Parts: sequence; structure tokens; C-alpha cells
Amino acid sequence: MDIHDLTRQLHAKNNSKIIMMVADGLGGLPFEKGGPTELEAADTPNLDALAVNGVQGASIPVLPGISPGSGPGHLGLFGYDPIKYQIGRGALEATGIGFELQDGDVAIRCNFCTLDADGNISDRRAGRIPTEESTPLAERLRQITIDGIKIFVEPVKEHRFVVVFRGEGLGGHVYDTDPQTTGVPPLDPIAYDDDSHKTVEVAKEFLRQARELLDGEEKANFHTMRGFAAKPNLPTYDEVYGLRAAAVAVYPMYKGLARLVGMDIVGNAQNLEEQATVVKENWDNYDFFFVHFKYTDSTGEDGNFDAKKARTEEFDAAIPLFTQLDPEVLIVTGDHSTPAFLSSHSWHPVPTLIASECCRPDNHTAFNETTCITGGLGQFEAKYLMSLALANADRLGKYGA
Amino acid sequence: MDIHDLTRQLHAKNNSKIIMMVADGLGGLPFEKGGPTELEAADTPNLDALAVNGVQGASIPVLPGISPGSGPGHLGLFGYDPIKYQIGRGALEATGIGFELQDGDVAIRCNFCTLDADGNISDRRAGRIPTEESTPLAERLRQITIDGIKIFVEPVKEHRFVVVFRGEGLGGHVYDTDPQTTGVPPLDPIAYDDDSHKTVEVAKEFLRQARELLDGEEKANFHTMRGFAAKPNLPTYDEVYGLRAAAVAVYPMYKGLARLVGMDIVGNAQNLEEQATVVKENWDNYDFFFVHFKYTDSTGEDGNFDAKKARTEEFDAAIPLFTQLDPEVLIVTGDHSTPAFLSSHSWHPVPTLIASECCRPDNHTAFNETTCITGGLGQFEAKYLMSLALANADRLGKYGA
Repeated sequence: MDIHDLTRQLHAKNNSKIIMMVADGLGGLPFEKGGPTELEAADTPNLDALAVNGVQGASIPVLPGISPGSGPGHLGLFGYDPIKYQIGRGALEATGIGFELQDGDVAIRCNFCTLDADGNISDRRAGRIPTEESTPLAERLRQITIDGIKIFVEPVKEHRFVVVFRGEGLGGHVYDTDPQTTGVPPLDPIAYDDDSHKTVEVAKEFLRQARELLDGEEKANFHTMRGFAAKPNLPTYDEVYGLRAAAVAVYPMYKGLARLVGMDIVGNAQNLEEQATVVKENWDNYDFFFVHFKYTDSTGEDGNFDAKKARTEEFDAAIPLFTQLDPEVLIVTGDHSTPAFLSSHSWHPVPTLIASECCRPDNHTAFNETTCITGGLGQFEAKYLMSLALANADRLGKYGA
Repeated sequence: MDIHDLTRQLHAKNNSKIIMMVADGLGGLPFEKGGPTELEAADTPNLDALAVNGVQGASIPVLPGISPGSGPGHLGLFGYDPIKYQIGRGALEATGIGFELQDGDVAIRCNFCTLDADGNISDRRAGRIPTEESTPLAERLRQITIDGIKIFVEPVKEHRFVVVFRGEGLGGHVYDTDPQTTGVPPLDPIAYDDDSHKTVEVAKEFLRQARELLDGEEKANFHTMRGFAAKPNLPTYDEVYGLRAAAVAVYPMYKGLARLVGMDIVGNAQNLEEQATVVKENWDNYDFFFVHFKYTDSTGEDGNFDAKKARTEEFDAAIPLFTQLDPEVLIVTGDHSTPAFLSSHSWHPVPTLIASECCRPDNHTAFNETTCITGGLGQFEAKYLMSLALANADRLGKYGA
């Protein structure tokens, strides 16, 4: 059952505003046995104040035990079943560097590699060639031309770059050319569905020209292609929720994920204060604002408990900038947990809060991993957050008579 | 996954009795910030006593954020996935006025309308013609005869009436003839599947004769047809649960919904005291009793917090009439929340309680929106209530070896 089957037929329009504040990787773990989590250790008077009249719960990003990447983590928050909707690796990589995929595009993650005299791969990452050396090589590949195909080559970091093919009839179902080992030649691209044969021909021609252009390079004399992926076909916020949605994010990945579900990317804010200003400036033009804060995740990934605690306090301090806009619905959540204890994304449910006039408060006066378990939202799959948001905004009609 | 796939193969028979008491719209909201809900404000010693040895939880009627009508709300309580099983509007309308649909029937909601001299609709509701004027007109349409089709015309209120066609080969998939606007003629009925062409022919002939019979009427000189719907094909309580089930309800809608899942309608009780008597009189003939109480919903719909509180106390006071029958399982729940604060059905989870010898108590000594969140049943979709009921009645065998 897809919740969109219901929201599509039930959504209604009004003048309400919904703000979804995502503190990336918000959930944490005790760093020491018996100790507090990052969120519990942090001084968060504003979040705790929201807890008093709001309702909280524990959001399961995908399913119990599943640790998501940024893609499925955000798809869940946006209300898109992260099992049903998958973003191919190439498309996610392109999204992450801010490349605007169009319908019909096929994106591919590429790695420079080193071929020996026999044409076998001797280094799958071209000696982890530094970015300053790899960028001009990637740019050199922009000379490649193929009839009827528009080609984009975008440098990433070190040995990595992204290629996008734009043209008619390109499917995204092609096997990687990286053999995942050395001492053998790269594989030929091979389609695994009938709609992707043209993509294979284009990829072969690209590889042929690339081989000529890179010939003679010491380290990066060729490249592999991985994660072929068409632009994912996601229904839009407007279609499934009737919402004009804006994303106010700092990093390309989150802008890109929002763009995939039809949000407009507004402003060029670099921090939460500027993000609040952008939301305010765009208040009348949108119904829904996605506000993304990265640093609760990056400090967690670094395994730095104190830094994550400090970033959590920074996030808390910005809350009044958004509450003073008086949205009908304010949501605070994260796309997954990133406990400093694990230095990685994790499967643990994420403290999540909804504040609205018609939420049913749950008597909590704090907001953290412990309180959320006994909150009024219970434990719920993230994909239901948007139907709850719409309901609290009085934007969902009655189901059945 | 449909829970019936399991209950069908696992259900067992014994002499246990299950009573499900449904206080319609039971769940509520604080009327003032920080205040109690209707159920929390009410003095409910009997429900609180049940909470001591019972187990409670928060029932999600359909899915998070979805506010159900009476149809899906009750289907969920009866254990029928309210997404999978949908009751068409015409069938629900017929059910609501107590019309007993049979297999193969097609029910249609009709509105008297006014046509101008050119045959265009000038009023889609015939000036909201009063019931005393519309009833004889609907009865006049009983003169219509169509070969091979049994026709029922049932007056409802004001401009509304219900038509049921009974015959061979009638599908329910026909578009409305109401153009939803004025200044244009009514639409012709059109089938949207191959099994409904005969229904279209019958409807056209009905409309032709109706036009003649209503010719010359000032306001109601024609009618539209909407919400064509075959009788929903629901498996019965006997088949999926092995239960002989009786409904003890006051209002036609709830009797009708119970009838659709194969319950017998017993007695003619007009209040909870009489309902308890009916249950007692039928004790030996049934395994399961559905007892419906309407007024917690209607007072909520009226936005009358104090009246809903009083009706909740009335419901509570009747509890001993049912506990003294000593059922093996007593369930107290609602089909959805109807907070007086919202004056409407809502999506909020519904306090739900199971009392049995083998439930696992959860240390609560009260029963309300706050306690149920941390009850032993947790938050659960209503469609699982019946499998819990059967288990507590020792009526479900082990799944797998």
C-alpha cells in the first residue's frame, strides 16, 4: 500500500504553511555506558519548549535495522517509500554535485583507472590521483562528441567523475564496466534490459574516444563506468500532496534530492540564520519548506560526540527564527541517526516532533531519544510523516464516507 | 499481507464470547492548551477498572494522518483492511438507510434536480426540496418497470434518494450523470468497465421513465445518478474468523456495515441498557457481539466538549451491564477520533482496550489518550484488532510448527 494512493485523492488546499526542519543524522547513542546521547547532553531549550505542546515519536527511516544513505533517508521523510523508490547510484552522484538531471538523462559514476601495457587494469583508482590532476583530465573528456547525444562530464574528487548522456531512447539498465579486480581488462558495458541497448552503444563510443584522449597518461590512462542510472521518476509534491514546496538547503546533495520530488530550490543561504531569512522571503510563494542542517551528521560521522552536541545546540538556537514565522505545522526530524559512537549512519529511530494547533500533545517536556519512544506518535515509518504533516495542516479530506 | 490469510487457516472454535464495544469517535483532543481530552475529563471508573487488568493501546484507523469515514473506520475494527476493501458511495448510502443489499445489486445515490426549458440543469439539488415534498416524488418513481430488473427506490432526505437495481449481469462501474455544474444538461451514464454496459442500459431506461413521471414538477422535474456501486464483496466473519457474529446497534448505518461482513442484526435496542439485554438474550446463539454507541461521535461532530464528556460517562456507566455477562474477551474502542475541538472525524489514534484472562496487563490504571500511548498494545493499525481478539479468546491456533 502506497500512502500516495490516499494523499493524491484526499489532499486539499488552504493557506497553511508547513516547515520541515531536518537535522541530518539527528539521532544518536550514549558515548559511554549509561551516559546521555548527543541530543540528551545538549542544552536544547527551544526543542524542549516545542515538546510541551507538540507531539513526538520515533521515526524509522526505512524498516527496523536498516541504516539508510542520504537518498532513502530523505525520500522517507518526503513521504516516498524508500523501498519502492530507489535512486540509482549514478543519479545520486550527479544529484550530489548539483547536476540537474532531466527526464531521459542517464548518469554514470566514473573512476579513472590505470591500464598496463596489455590493457589490463593495474590500479582501479588510478593511484587515487589528486583532484588537481584529475579535474583537467575529466574536463579534457568534454571533447568527446557522439551524434545525437549531449554529453556532460563533471569532475568530482580524486579519481571520480560523473558522465551524463542526454538524448532520445536511453535506458539506465547497464552493467558496470569495473571488473572489481586488477589484472584483467575493463568489462564492456552490457545492457540488462531491451531499452538500454542504445545507452550501451553510446557508452562504448564514449569509452573508445576517452581511451584515445587519455592515451599516454601515466596514472589515469582510462576509466571505468559504474552505477548507470536514469533520472528516477518520482511523482512531485504538487501532484501527490498539492503542495508548492521549497527547499532551503546549503549542500548540493539535499538540494538535488528535493529537486527530484519537484521542490524549488530557493535562495543561497549558507547557515540556519540565512535559511530562516530565505524561508521568510518566500513565505507567500510556497506551502511547504524543507530546511536542511548538515552538521549533526558530519560531526557524528567524525565520531566527535562533543562537536555533534555543539551542532545540536546550534540547531536548537535557530528554532525561534522559524517558530516566529508562525507556521501551522512545524516538524523537527532527521533523515537517520548518526551516532558519534558509531561514526556512521545507523538504523536507530530518529526523534521526530510535530507542533501544530491540532496535534495531540503527549505530556513530554523534553525532546530526545528517550522521550520520543513514549511520545504520542509512537514508532512509525518515516514515509508516514508527510501524511501526518498534511493532516495537521488540515490539508487532507476524509477517507470514505 | 492480509491478516485474513492467517486467521482463515488458524481459527478454532470454542465456547468463548467476545464483546466489542465501539464508542463512535471515542478519541479526542484537549479543548484548551494543556487541558484534558473529553475522555480524560470524563469520570470513567468502569473503564479505568478495566485498564487495571486489561491491556490498552492506540489504534490507527487506516494509516497515520488519514481521517476515515464510518465505512473504513468500521471495516478496520472488523479486521478488514480499509484500503483493500472499499465500499462504494451508493452502497454505503443504501447501507446507511437500512437497505439490505444482495449480491449483484447496484446501488445509486440520486439527487432531484431542476431542468430549465432547454433541458439544462438550473439547480443541481432541486432547490433543496423539503423531505415531505421529495418523498412522494421518490415513491412515484416506484412505478418504473424494466424487464428482468427488480427496482427499489428509497427516499432519503430533501433532494436525495437511493435507487437499487437487482438483476443478472449488473456491474457497478458507471460514471456519475451529475455534471457538477449548472447550465448544461445531465450527462448520460457511461460504463468504465465491460461488465457495466447492462447497468448503463438499465439506468438510461430508468432515467427516461423518470423524466416522464416527473414532467411538469416545478422544482424536481428530473434527477441525477451518482456513486454507482455494486454490493461490496466482503468475506464473512464466519469464513475468516469462524465466528457467529451479532450486531447490536441503534442506527441503520452501523447495522448495515455489520451486515456487509455477515453479522446478524439482532434486537431492536434503542440504548445501551437495551443493547446489553439483547446481548444477554442472544448469548448462546453467537460468539461475537458488536455493540455500537453513536453519541460520542455526534457530540464531537457538534463541537460540544461537555456533551461528549457526558456521553463518554454514559458509555462508561453501561460497562458493568456487559462485564457482568462475563465474556472471555471485552474490547473497548472507537472507529476513529472525533475531537470536539475539530468538530469532525480526525486521524488521531483511538484509545483501545482488551480485557481477557490472558491479555498481558500494562500497569495502567486509567484509560485515555495519554495512557494508551504507553499501553501494552502500542500503536497498531485497527485491522489487527480482530486477530488480537481471537487470540485472547483462544480461538487462533499456532502458525507453523
